[in-house]
Amino acid sequence: MSFHITATDGAARTGDIGLARGVVRTPAFMPVGTAGAVKAMRPDEVHALGADIVLANTYHLMLRPGAERVAALGGLHTFANWPWPILTDSGGYQVMSLAKLRRIDADGVTFQSHIDGSTHRLTPERALEIQALLGSDIRMQLDECLALPAPADEVERAMRLSLAWAERSRRAFDAGAGAALFGIVQGGDNAPLRVQSSTALSQIGFDGYAVGGLAVGEPQATMLAMIEASVPPLPAAAPRYLMGVGTPDDIVAAVARGIDMFDCVLPTRAGRHGVAYTRFGTINLKNARHADDPRPLDETSDCPATRDYARAYLHHLVKAGEMLAAMLLTENNLAYYHGLMAGIRAAIAARRYEDFAASVREGWARGDEAPQSV
Amino acid sequence: MSFHITATDGAARTGDIGLARGVVRTPAFMPVGTAGAVKAMRPDEVHALGADIVLANTYHLMLRPGAERVAALGGLHTFANWPWPILTDSGGYQVMSLAKLRRIDADGVTFQSHIDGSTHRLTPERALEIQALLGSDIRMQLDECLALPAPADEVERAMRLSLAWAERSRRAFDAGAGAALFGIVQGGDNAPLRVQSSTALSQIGFDGYAVGGLAVGEPQATMLAMIEASVPPLPAAAPRYLMGVGTPDDIVAAVARGIDMFDCVLPTRAGRHGVAYTRFGTINLKNARHADDPRPLDETSDCPATRDYARAYLHHLVKAGEMLAAMLLTENNLAYYHGLMAGIRAAIAARRYEDFAASVREGWARGDEAPQSV
Repeated sequence: MSFHITATDGAARTGDIGLARGVVRTPAFMPVGTAGAVKAMRPDEVHALGADIVLANTYHLMLRPGAERVAALGGLHTFANWPWPILTDSGGYQVMSLAKLRRIDADGVTFQSHIDGSTHRLTPERALEIQALLGSDIRMQLDECLALPAPADEVERAMRLSLAWAERSRRAFDAGAGAALFGIVQGGDNAPLRVQSSTALSQIGFDGYAVGGLAVGEPQATMLAMIEASVPPLPAAAPRYLMGVGTPDDIVAAVARGIDMFDCVLPTRAGRHGVAYTRFGTINLKNARHADDPRPLDETSDCPATRDYARAYLHHLVKAGEMLAAMLLTENNLAYYHGLMAGIRAAIAARRYEDFAASVREGWARGDEAPQSV
Repeated sequence: MSFHITATDGAARTGDIGLARGVVRTPAFMPVGTAGAVKAMRPDEVHALGADIVLANTYHLMLRPGAERVAALGGLHTFANWPWPILTDSGGYQVMSLAKLRRIDADGVTFQSHIDGSTHRLTPERALEIQALLGSDIRMQLDECLALPAPADEVERAMRLSLAWAERSRRAFDAGAGAALFGIVQGGDNAPLRVQSSTALSQIGFDGYAVGGLAVGEPQATMLAMIEASVPPLPAAAPRYLMGVGTPDDIVAAVARGIDMFDCVLPTRAGRHGVAYTRFGTINLKNARHADDPRPLDETSDCPATRDYARAYLHHLVKAGEMLAAMLLTENNLAYYHGLMAGIRAAIAARRYEDFAASVREGWARGDEAPQSV
């Protein structure tokens, strides 16, 4: 893996991550393909919308269809018909949020599948073995991610456990196939613990560094303060990935603090729940006020879903339970997110990121009711 | 509306229906866009797969979002972002199959919406008024369609009522906007009644003629016998549309008996239930035998859904409840149906329809287990 920073503006950076299967332009947004598919989108459509890389969930894929099965079928890229880069998480986050009867110990975590109740175990080594079977391009260490708020001693214990697992992951990782390994900063909402975690991870040495354990219930100000604590001790030459974040506003704020990569279910999940992201904030198409509105979501967009369908039609599709509603709103939302990332990259390259951030925030604040022409 | 027959082979014909919004190549298959959307497909994708025309259901659209609303939004073509030809049914079939507390009288039918229980009334005149508000290119008379088997006197009563409504429809129809009106042959499984119905409709005179009241529970042999009774009295120069049919085998057999147009929910509904249509018959992707099968549905296809995704992946998507399963299998099924129609048209033009029919039937009989190479 290579990482070239081509421009900086304050703490914000833009560049390229070079991977065996393609280049990831940063700051990058990674759509979430939970079960080996970005929901309601064909893979080539996701790529055409600007996604250089997608995230796939180790937890879901290890349970169904199974990592060994995916490997026998040629790996996840072949299986999911996605020939471009893939990042896999370690499975730890979903074990905490989805699995039943989980039991964590110093060596790993034992849990029951939420699908069929079968018992499974993840250790730092097995998490990497599964990711190698899937054949992902960027792999994540197993960590323990707490919901916030959490007791201070719990936060420290989980951070230290995650660090121990980081060391084991580094030792177990086989870079032979050209994949990259990222460590994960933990430390909850405790800035000194964040600094300790980042410093220790940097000493172990990873291809990239994730800031984990955020967007788990804390206010945005806390999240941003934790980014500010986590980032400075990390090596400037490595990519920084803020896991599970976030809203467009979260992303714009995090980029200003030196984050290069993001993943989040928001654009795809919101699309399946009738919510569109636009330049003028979110629009809830379930709302009856759209029933007679002939306007598209944004007539200035290049995205067909955004430009070519009346809000009245989208409202009708949502009310009628048509799958096309989820398809078009997911397309709109991913187009919006990737367009935002392209704008972010261009603004950093032009060294006018602050102006760009102010301008997009002005649009969101303006809201959907105002006339759309700029 | 124009109709040019460019070649015949026995009773089979191929040609072009000219409509204000485009040309329909016949024999034609019309995907069903129940609520103004072909389920799990974007409109431009449906057109690119070979659909020259889609069917929309008057019953569904009159209830939600409402015909007057669609008219105010510019008509169904604009509303649904489908600029190509649309055929609307009269609403009668769904009133019989879906509505609650329906009461039919000589003047029309009163029923309660299956969505909210509200009371509505359809008469031959109102059915055409609604279709004019939707702005469809081909409009259907209101008729009464019985499930089979039905008592002989009921069949005759419904046929005579449908004929009376045909006359009223012809008088009420305003061809000013360039739309076409089709009459509907009824008569259940009674060949003499079918002949009477076709003869009387021809005397009234329509732009095209539908054979209705079939594919409602009768054996295929009965359906084919009723087509053979219904078609000869119809004017050869007008298109013939077999409503609600059918399987690929039904279509091949009906074309041999002079049918030019078809609509059916099978390819889209089967796609949402994990079933793929292929040259070698249907494949049920829910079946566990596909879990480790790296082969695509058909490696010789030009359709990405058919050619580029492993059966193991499609099986996984179906099991995981991913919307992409319905999207890809619907795409495959519509590609198969439209490819079949293209093959039918080419075979008639080459006057080798019988050989073509024998060859496709041989493929279906061969089944999915055999090696796929021809």
